[in-house]
Amino acid sequence: MSTPAEQRAATPERFFNAINSYQLTEAIKSAIELEVFTAVDEGNTTAETIAKRCHAAKRGMRILCDFLSVHNFLTKQRTNYALAADSALFLNCNSPAYLGSAIEFLLTPRLRECHAHLTDAVRRGGTALGEGMLDPENPDWVKYARGMMAMARRPAEIIAAELRKEGEAHKVLDIAASHGMFGISVAKQSPSAHIYASDWKNVLEVAKKNADAMGVGDRYHLIPGSAFEADFGNGYDLALITNLLHGFDTLACTELMRKVHVALNPEGRVAIAEYVPNPDRVSPPTAAGFSLTMLAATPWGDAYTFAELEGMSRAAGFTRVELSPAELGRNRLVIAYR
Amino acid sequence: MSTPAEQRAATPERFFNAINSYQLTEAIKSAIELEVFTAVDEGNTTAETIAKRCHAAKRGMRILCDFLSVHNFLTKQRTNYALAADSALFLNCNSPAYLGSAIEFLLTPRLRECHAHLTDAVRRGGTALGEGMLDPENPDWVKYARGMMAMARRPAEIIAAELRKEGEAHKVLDIAASHGMFGISVAKQSPSAHIYASDWKNVLEVAKKNADAMGVGDRYHLIPGSAFEADFGNGYDLALITNLLHGFDTLACTELMRKVHVALNPEGRVAIAEYVPNPDRVSPPTAAGFSLTMLAATPWGDAYTFAELEGMSRAAGFTRVELSPAELGRNRLVIAYR
Repeated sequence: MSTPAEQRAATPERFFNAINSYQLTEAIKSAIELEVFTAVDEGNTTAETIAKRCHAAKRGMRILCDFLSVHNFLTKQRTNYALAADSALFLNCNSPAYLGSAIEFLLTPRLRECHAHLTDAVRRGGTALGEGMLDPENPDWVKYARGMMAMARRPAEIIAAELRKEGEAHKVLDIAASHGMFGISVAKQSPSAHIYASDWKNVLEVAKKNADAMGVGDRYHLIPGSAFEADFGNGYDLALITNLLHGFDTLACTELMRKVHVALNPEGRVAIAEYVPNPDRVSPPTAAGFSLTMLAATPWGDAYTFAELEGMSRAAGFTRVELSPAELGRNRLVIAYR
Repeated sequence: MSTPAEQRAATPERFFNAINSYQLTEAIKSAIELEVFTAVDEGNTTAETIAKRCHAAKRGMRILCDFLSVHNFLTKQRTNYALAADSALFLNCNSPAYLGSAIEFLLTPRLRECHAHLTDAVRRGGTALGEGMLDPENPDWVKYARGMMAMARRPAEIIAAELRKEGEAHKVLDIAASHGMFGISVAKQSPSAHIYASDWKNVLEVAKKNADAMGVGDRYHLIPGSAFEADFGNGYDLALITNLLHGFDTLACTELMRKVHVALNPEGRVAIAEYVPNPDRVSPPTAAGFSLTMLAATPWGDAYTFAELEGMSRAAGFTRVELSPAELGRNRLVIAYR
């Protein structure tokens, strides 16, 4: 409980800012759509010249750039704007690390709509909109594959390097392959590895295209359909389950892990990339906060703690489960050994 | 420009969080709609008991409360939640300082829709949706009057006390009276003051009801219609213009100030409560950030600097313009002397 002294010091600012925080979503979205960060990178530093480059009104651009400066995505000196370090790297189309296309998925209308019905979702204990984002062949997963690929590149490289430390993989099952980056990274680091990618058919078209473009297409095989129903075959020494388990309840996750267990060689292991909150479920912020999206957008999904992921894995027959210290950013790497 | 060292340290976290920041809007909205903070104040501290009190699912409530804890609107110890100081004071229906009803206006669909079209607004240099929030008799201003009254109470008292230091007011013009709190506070502190409230007819019904409830109804008079067109009469020693000028361009503001100048006694003054950014237009954050709402929701509105407000006032004939040091929270008090 708060003390009287704390109450005297309290102001409505945090409430007011929290209620209005959707405006930051819209401002970053507009800046990406209009290529504001790219315009600044190209040497346009005033509202007038940025507006010209972005085909926008000077007045509109001045107000948008000031807002982006308030939130430190730009810096402002007199009337000149410059890029913050992360904006230069991730939001500028001229940067090889550009991530702006992630908004195509992160702000897809269905996901926004799911969150707009959050009060109902809290009442029900799951998405208020049917299956939420989990409708079969939901075209948003193609947007995910296209939009989130850039965001996955670095974590995928880190995971592949981490996994290789414990031995070369030859036959790899990539479940919920999406853009394919996780499996493709393993293929690039292990020249003899064949990747079997499982996802919806329309999504696998994106993965295959990426595998071809990255020179591993001849070792890239497709298993279209739901991961819960598809026939994976067997003989895998590595399986990847990246950003999938959070969409489902413990029972479904355990079933899937059991199915993977059967498909693995005796020495096989499964690498799980996930949002993993601490046991308190309120830290670290991004991983813990991700549960809300699962409440809004899925019937039963959640961000699982390591203990929960370990429990599912053991229930599925895995003998050892470890939380890797590898730094992936928002996700953690969990490895379950058959 | 960022240095290579800064770029190496850069992560996409701020971008990811900014894009998802609309989720905080939805979470606070849901918590207010479900009366989560009130439930905790009433002694319910676990997801289960809070859910029961709020007629929601335990699972939904656990995830919502964890999210609110991530953002420090609740605190969490083991599985028990408690209120942050500002949540206890402002978001709990049992508190006399409750402000939760502000979401009725702050998240009114028209305002959200204006922001959803921000990219077009930046292109045009003004709202993409007709007159935005400025349609005559827009019913959202009734929501404003009802929802924002609590938020105005404290600033209104501070302004009335500040104005009284320089002398008692007898005839007061309250332009854009809304809930009436600013004029009513003057009336309460100055027992001989008569208030003439100008606003749309439907809005003035709220103001009149509040004036009656607060015991100043017999000194409360109504001037229905647009402030730009209504006949104010004259003989005022004080005019209040609170949270109005930001909706209009410099020319319209100057015209209104001229109209007020004519209505004032020779010794009269006008008190302007406004978002007043510093000359850099990027600080303080809340005042500077408010320009974006005006871009999204009005054709020509803006958050004006003190120099701009002084310029309009002088152009309208006022001889002296001062920025009061009074602490109002998000707004500042500017006083123009005839």
